[in-house]
Amino acid sequence: MSGKTTRWRVSRVSGGGIAPRADLLAVEEPLEIRIDGEPLTVTMRTPGDDIDLAAGFLYTEGLLGSLDEVREIRMCDENVAAVTPAAGAALAPSTRNFVTTSACGVCGKDSIEAIRVRSRFDVASDPVRVPAAVLALLPDRLRQAQRVFASTGGLHAAGLFTADGELLVLREDVGRHNAVDKVAGWALRSGRLPLAGCVLLVSGRASFELVQKAVMIGVPVLAAVSAPSSLAASLAQETGLTLAGFLRGSTMNLYSGAERVAALDPASAK
Amino acid sequence: MSGKTTRWRVSRVSGGGIAPRADLLAVEEPLEIRIDGEPLTVTMRTPGDDIDLAAGFLYTEGLLGSLDEVREIRMCDENVAAVTPAAGAALAPSTRNFVTTSACGVCGKDSIEAIRVRSRFDVASDPVRVPAAVLALLPDRLRQAQRVFASTGGLHAAGLFTADGELLVLREDVGRHNAVDKVAGWALRSGRLPLAGCVLLVSGRASFELVQKAVMIGVPVLAAVSAPSSLAASLAQETGLTLAGFLRGSTMNLYSGAERVAALDPASAK
Repeated sequence: MSGKTTRWRVSRVSGGGIAPRADLLAVEEPLEIRIDGEPLTVTMRTPGDDIDLAAGFLYTEGLLGSLDEVREIRMCDENVAAVTPAAGAALAPSTRNFVTTSACGVCGKDSIEAIRVRSRFDVASDPVRVPAAVLALLPDRLRQAQRVFASTGGLHAAGLFTADGELLVLREDVGRHNAVDKVAGWALRSGRLPLAGCVLLVSGRASFELVQKAVMIGVPVLAAVSAPSSLAASLAQETGLTLAGFLRGSTMNLYSGAERVAALDPASAK
Repeated sequence: MSGKTTRWRVSRVSGGGIAPRADLLAVEEPLEIRIDGEPLTVTMRTPGDDIDLAAGFLYTEGLLGSLDEVREIRMCDENVAAVTPAAGAALAPSTRNFVTTSACGVCGKDSIEAIRVRSRFDVASDPVRVPAAVLALLPDRLRQAQRVFASTGGLHAAGLFTADGELLVLREDVGRHNAVDKVAGWALRSGRLPLAGCVLLVSGRASFELVQKAVMIGVPVLAAVSAPSSLAASLAQETGLTLAGFLRGSTMNLYSGAERVAALDPASAK
């Protein structure tokens, strides 16, 4: 299964007994990202699409503004991505996630402001409209495309769709943020940024970090199978991102940007 | 609801229409941890038990060896935990999660070795035995204790239990690792480390990071409602931690340390 899963011998407890059984686990391994030979960060990820992951991480964290700033990203080991900046480019590490203020007083508003300043794209101006009936179909399409999920239950997924519900790319990882960074890196490296008119679906909850990444790659609609956090909803509202959550069957909640979503037509749903 | 949840106006899509509705979201806010005034890290967390979170984070990451190394931890702002080391203590920041090798070649084995070297406790030698029937009861006990969960669906939980299934402490957070660090900090600050004879239950999946934290606080049994990753299972096996996953009703999988778990007695289960 392409290195995303591995066999593990488990003791299965069931019906009053314990019996050995073979099980499949999602693979988790560290990926170290180095800039000019200097370790920048280590993320625990599922191997695969690692160049995309490194590129996407640098981009959504605001360390990389465009591919022009990079001369090369290559795997110098199966768990080390070595990034060589282009001449004159810095790719300077900043504080993880966002710039904090130097005085006492870091808060959600600072975080939101930092993201708004850093993103190159204005998702608020994206005129796309998405029928709720299309959004409602996406979780099933993601799951169908996610064959690995059924066998391990341990992989998060991020899927990028058109506003018509066509799947453009699917990435999986033990970490939700990595799955999204893999999508981001794919989009960056294939010249598709900003992702205007697209919908990004994540298999779990929507955190501040995931909304941040969506805004950084210019995708106007983020949908999550589960709940968003307060700061995820606030950042979405402040940046004009449409945030949908709790996609269950034909129901969902819109936490911001509801004007982009046309009500379900009961006849066309399902 | 004590600042863990906040109201948010959503547009609810259901039955072909869209209608406004009040919803509750799990609160997510940044917590900056400073050592002697210098920012160390920012974690996105649900406010509450922040001193425990800061102490637990420093301890499970190996930056803090005992409370003697700290003069004071105080909130200097609602989102800033200021740590003042004791005279002579360094609390030196190291690479996040584990020490990486300087040559190409970071891998899961390096990560496992780093944790094994760093932990002060040998969970392998803990003689505790836990009936599978007790483990099977814990998810329900956790959910019952987790009143907030029912209203937002957005909070992870970590619960510390005795081997008899008595709940010692429950902590919730938008981040699983934070929920575990809050438990770790509570245990550290109340003089309970190592957590010999205890069971730590987490509401979601078990990652390498969560197993690392369990090993660092000396808890011999980690149970997860969902799946572990490959590296979580490997680290558990290498350190002698019992790792149970997929706790569903009276069934579960034991990924390592199965000798600590006595088979279900069907009569006493449920």
